Amino acid sequence: MEKLINAESIEKTYEQIKDKVIKTSLIKADKLSSFSGNNVFLKLENLQKTGSFKIRGALNKILNLSKEQQSKGLIAASAGNHAQGVALAARSLNLKSKIIMPITAPLAKIEATKEYGGSKCIVQLHGTMFDDAMSEAIRIEKEEGLTLVHPYDDNFVVNGQGTIGLEIYEQMQALGNDIDYCLVPIGGGGLLSGISTYLKSKNPNIKFIGIEAENVDSFKQALKNGKPFKIQAKSSIADGIAVKQIGELTFKILKNNVDEIVTVSEEEIAQAMLFLLEKCKVVTEGSGAVSVAALLSGKLDKIIGKGKNVVCLISGGNVDITTLGTIINSALISSHRRVPFSVNGKISNNTINEIVDILTKNGASIYKIHSSFDRNKLDISNFSIFVVMDTSDEYQKNKIFNEIRQSNSNFTLLIK
Amino acid sequence: MEKLINAESIEKTYEQIKDKVIKTSLIKADKLSSFSGNNVFLKLENLQKTGSFKIRGALNKILNLSKEQQSKGLIAASAGNHAQGVALAARSLNLKSKIIMPITAPLAKIEATKEYGGSKCIVQLHGTMFDDAMSEAIRIEKEEGLTLVHPYDDNFVVNGQGTIGLEIYEQMQALGNDIDYCLVPIGGGGLLSGISTYLKSKNPNIKFIGIEAENVDSFKQALKNGKPFKIQAKSSIADGIAVKQIGELTFKILKNNVDEIVTVSEEEIAQAMLFLLEKCKVVTEGSGAVSVAALLSGKLDKIIGKGKNVVCLISGGNVDITTLGTIINSALISSHRRVPFSVNGKISNNTINEIVDILTKNGASIYKIHSSFDRNKLDISNFSIFVVMDTSDEYQKNKIFNEIRQSNSNFTLLIK
Repeated sequence: MEKLINAESIEKTYEQIKDKVIKTSLIKADKLSSFSGNNVFLKLENLQKTGSFKIRGALNKILNLSKEQQSKGLIAASAGNHAQGVALAARSLNLKSKIIMPITAPLAKIEATKEYGGSKCIVQLHGTMFDDAMSEAIRIEKEEGLTLVHPYDDNFVVNGQGTIGLEIYEQMQALGNDIDYCLVPIGGGGLLSGISTYLKSKNPNIKFIGIEAENVDSFKQALKNGKPFKIQAKSSIADGIAVKQIGELTFKILKNNVDEIVTVSEEEIAQAMLFLLEKCKVVTEGSGAVSVAALLSGKLDKIIGKGKNVVCLISGGNVDITTLGTIINSALISSHRRVPFSVNGKISNNTINEIVDILTKNGASIYKIHSSFDRNKLDISNFSIFVVMDTSDEYQKNKIFNEIRQSNSNFTLLIK
Repeated sequence: MEKLINAESIEKTYEQIKDKVIKTSLIKADKLSSFSGNNVFLKLENLQKTGSFKIRGALNKILNLSKEQQSKGLIAASAGNHAQGVALAARSLNLKSKIIMPITAPLAKIEATKEYGGSKCIVQLHGTMFDDAMSEAIRIEKEEGLTLVHPYDDNFVVNGQGTIGLEIYEQMQALGNDIDYCLVPIGGGGLLSGISTYLKSKNPNIKFIGIEAENVDSFKQALKNGKPFKIQAKSSIADGIAVKQIGELTFKILKNNVDEIVTVSEEEIAQAMLFLLEKCKVVTEGSGAVSVAALLSGKLDKIIGKGKNVVCLISGGNVDITTLGTIINSALISSHRRVPFSVNGKISNNTINEIVDILTKNGASIYKIHSSFDRNKLDISNFSIFVVMDTSDEYQKNKIFNEIRQSNSNFTLLIK
């Protein structure tokens, strides 16, 4: 079975792991459906144990090791989700694990990994990037005789992730729906390799659309190049799929199974996280939101058309809460709902009142307000008022700006 | 059937409405389970159509009207979730509806109600409070011959909400679990009346704990008083259950079915919203989080004990995104993870560096930093530096404060 990845191997895998993982919900997303003109379903692996799908593959890998390998213990390198998946999988089987994380990994993810791993888990910080941590893990693997649990380029891992395809198939059947399109994030490629292998075997008509972050499009570039290589990449808020080199094994599978590749910008990812939070009540991390980002971006309109059954894979929800606050703030700004601006000019005693009146009359609320002298000119009558207001949409914003412009000829409105 | 509320009437109701509502997920919440020492399950009505359970009762009420009543149209008063539920229920049956909302209702909820209601729905703003809107709705009901859909004090509405109990029963059985405790928010009382009626009939040993906001404890006070009355109440972030008078019908049911009442503070509600967001990846509004707030508060420790199967009802997720940003911010502050402080004193050129060094050395990140003259003293060497830092916990915060205190005898640390 080790060498195979097909519907049968994935079904066998499911029998082995199903009592140790959550059969995560698949829900119809009404707001996304009406937005896109399709029937959109979300498969919520953000509700999986450890907050991402990674435990499925890790568990299958570990369950299929020899007793000797198991007793010697496991090693993995990861900056986040895979670390937590391996730590919990090892603990659930009462095995030792060593997880190498870069020192730049968020403290919250380091703490979570320690917590999931328990007393038999050692978390070591090494290097500043994932690649450094991986090199160290490979060194320790040989030195200490541990078994490396690779995050994607491994048959057992791909079979494990493939069990999501099995659940999607069952859940969509139970709802009486065929699947037309399946939108899945690509990082190292294990997730989409497993899901597409299972579902294609059940229904060859299902189309698979792989989604990558524009900043880290290693599969798209590998396809052009004809084979995997380490790409030049920028950082991305979709850190869970920021993998610079697509797997060898997964490249072969994806080359055959993927019908389209779409890349999404940082801005599109942040907007999708906000949409999921606000309209669908679902918390996602950057990589967990890319399938929805692709759908919202309009880039799939011509490919998918209307009236289709579309499954979006939500791969994880491990977003730092402070990051989430920042994303809420910046997404509000870019969707014209939180608007920073300033008003400069010769300003009377009454100026703040005039501006506040315009805002409140129009139903905007004031998030911040701050006024100061114009110190360059040493002229006390030159003031600057800085405001951040919350509005409901661009129309309300423009209406307010027009009223401010018309209210006093001394005002200069500066929009940030 | 109209006069009955029992397992049979709820089962009949379910047959009528089940194709028009979502069978929402019931999930095991691992982090809540280990926190409380019980097996905690969340019933996710925040994933229901319109983002709350309200559509169940509204739909059942409307489906059971005469053809004549249906064709004349419906009226409802609400500041939020019930408005959206009635609007969508009416639209799904192609009926006219008029929804009266107070002018203070959030613009987002007014817009959502219009969107759900479609072209046959009129949203009118009237008065500043829910009570004003309700009086206006009753006036229009008589004047225009519309049928009022009450938010809770109505047999059909209670039967509709009771279908959640039926789903919980089936879902917990499918997982192979008995139910020991069921924690449900109380506003007008319709939700808990329906759920407890169904589940008590299936298993009289299930204990029901009703949760109210401390600021609006109308059921608790009605119990003391022996009958419902309009209480003096403060505002609450749990606006969905901020009902000043418990229903007549629901009071009678709850008096028999509720085993304990627990009230939760605004702070506890905000912390629960954050816990659900961060640890469970679930978006809730204030009222949707009160059951979890009660569990996290420790107030149930002696009542429930350990090792029990506990179902928490998550009633809704319609939180304004800007409110969510504010809650994230204030919850971070109150859990010592976002810490505002200032440092005053005679300060050299190097002062900002000294402080920034201490923060970064300890792994804190700087959310805001601002320095200014002490203008009262007209002495340029007196500076004040204001900082907001993000830390991982109270321990890290205290370590940083100690280092700042010891670093320079000129510094005065002011903790906000």
